[in-house]
Amino acid sequence: MSGSIAVIGGGVIGLAVARRAAQDGWSVTVHRTQEHGASWVAGGMLAPHSEGWPGEADQLAIGLESLKLWHAGFLDGLPAEVVTAHESLVVAVDRADVADLKTVANWLSEQGHPVTMTTAAREIEPLLAQGIRHGFTADTELAVDNRALVSALEQACTDLGVRWAPPVTDLAAVDADVRVIANGIDAPALWPGLAVHPVKGEVLRLRWRKGCMPLPRRVVRARVHGRPVYLVPRGDGVVVGATQYEHGRDTAPVVRGVRDLLDDACAVMPALGEYELAECAAGLRPMSPDGLPLVGRLDERTLAATGHGRNGFLLAPWTAERIAGELAGLRGTT
Amino acid sequence: MSGSIAVIGGGVIGLAVARRAAQDGWSVTVHRTQEHGASWVAGGMLAPHSEGWPGEADQLAIGLESLKLWHAGFLDGLPAEVVTAHESLVVAVDRADVADLKTVANWLSEQGHPVTMTTAAREIEPLLAQGIRHGFTADTELAVDNRALVSALEQACTDLGVRWAPPVTDLAAVDADVRVIANGIDAPALWPGLAVHPVKGEVLRLRWRKGCMPLPRRVVRARVHGRPVYLVPRGDGVVVGATQYEHGRDTAPVVRGVRDLLDDACAVMPALGEYELAECAAGLRPMSPDGLPLVGRLDERTLAATGHGRNGFLLAPWTAERIAGELAGLRGTT
Repeated sequence: MSGSIAVIGGGVIGLAVARRAAQDGWSVTVHRTQEHGASWVAGGMLAPHSEGWPGEADQLAIGLESLKLWHAGFLDGLPAEVVTAHESLVVAVDRADVADLKTVANWLSEQGHPVTMTTAAREIEPLLAQGIRHGFTADTELAVDNRALVSALEQACTDLGVRWAPPVTDLAAVDADVRVIANGIDAPALWPGLAVHPVKGEVLRLRWRKGCMPLPRRVVRARVHGRPVYLVPRGDGVVVGATQYEHGRDTAPVVRGVRDLLDDACAVMPALGEYELAECAAGLRPMSPDGLPLVGRLDERTLAATGHGRNGFLLAPWTAERIAGELAGLRGTT
Repeated sequence: MSGSIAVIGGGVIGLAVARRAAQDGWSVTVHRTQEHGASWVAGGMLAPHSEGWPGEADQLAIGLESLKLWHAGFLDGLPAEVVTAHESLVVAVDRADVADLKTVANWLSEQGHPVTMTTAAREIEPLLAQGIRHGFTADTELAVDNRALVSALEQACTDLGVRWAPPVTDLAAVDADVRVIANGIDAPALWPGLAVHPVKGEVLRLRWRKGCMPLPRRVVRARVHGRPVYLVPRGDGVVVGATQYEHGRDTAPVVRGVRDLLDDACAVMPALGEYELAECAAGLRPMSPDGLPLVGRLDERTLAATGHGRNGFLLAPWTAERIAGELAGLRGTT
């Protein structure tokens, strides 16, 4: 017989954990705020290869494991249109960018996950700027509409009987058998010492307009004179991200960051210049010291599921499975 | 004895006309939409010198006449804080921009309205980018917070007994003694053939943040490699404008326009890079073929007050006086 779980946090991690636990028969309550968190701003790329970098073998391994779960069940019961791309194309602008690209591609190959290099990137994606030639494709990577996915997970939770409750400021006030701390950068307020800190990122939403070139159909990631930028298709436009810097809990989109993103996006795909600039926002990624998520047991009735950094959406299925495993272990003891 | 007036349009022109007519004892109704028009987006500069250009002597003359009215009574009874700057500094970035600047300054001098040239613009405005030296000051020009001013005029109208009514789609349905068409780009829908067409302009609102350099205290206008840009102080930040192009009734802020404004603003005042990008919008200026406003009598009970182009705020007092004069003439006949 299962007991009760309080999941604290209503972003993609909390919802994925809640849905999985409810499927396993737990009585689940999700405590959430009405404010938008990192899941609202996120680009929604599921891109372990594209995010790869030498030395980050553990991130690659869990990212690939989680991407498999996306392909094998995590999307079951969710509307098909939450998935907005089924491939990534990673390109380089200048020679130093090409060198970085090759570094990543070689490393992925050494790790046993080769990608397909090209020197004719514009044949794959004709919307790329002239002069962009080098790239690789990652043909199992996905992108999801972050807001549509969160809504769909909320609906799935509701359908499974998950209850919704206000946010929690004190763990002691939560009388569920098990508490899962899944509230991103706010986790240390509930569990002092939990090593998560906010890393700010500006993200723009561009909207297609009549007369514009057609929407890209795959995720395009690029290095532009050393700066990374990504372009993620949506039903009505493109999400452009993301800057990355530490500035406390500041979520104001700053002129400098917006300029960099617009410049880099247009350097990669000039046709975006004619899109509407529909939204500028900034999110706070819950970053851990080593870049690996903090998912596991804190004490006999408290679990952590935070510290996902840039990869909350990618790692949501993996996290839900890990927490489900912990819960199965706890079940004997509660 | 005065009769009734219907003012169609609740922007700065309609409100200025309505207030003036109510002060003269007319029974005034303002017909307005709930949608934001050009007055919501405007920069709020009152800048006939800075807007000057050889050949536009008539615009200069009415602009200067209207600026005098701003200084002599139009602001009476309005909160002091609607005025956000009391001087303009016009600067040039490259040599061609300097040549343009001198052209304007010489022409203003020939017109009998000399401005003060400087080659040490940064001594006047230390926030200017290094390398910007040439400029002139226009020390009678003002800037107003467009939204605060519109609110203040609405309040003044209400205090004078002006009534508010829904928008009008057919002049024949308006049974007031006199109708004043003051609804900007929508005027031709009420009076076919009225030569007003929309000219789009993107305008950005930047918000000061903790740690930023202090707000500029005067309007700064510049040519940046031939492109005009203006920076207008507000209580909480800076308004950056404005692109200018014809694109029908489209009010979507477009990536290309926003990029140009951000690039030019930061080229003139680099510290703006640290401000929050709080709002991107686009307005539709009601432009006439010759750039002069269409203010006057259309028939024995219909007046026009539109076609103010970029200068609706500047020309509001002049327009209100002109319409008041027309009304005085009509009074004998109604």
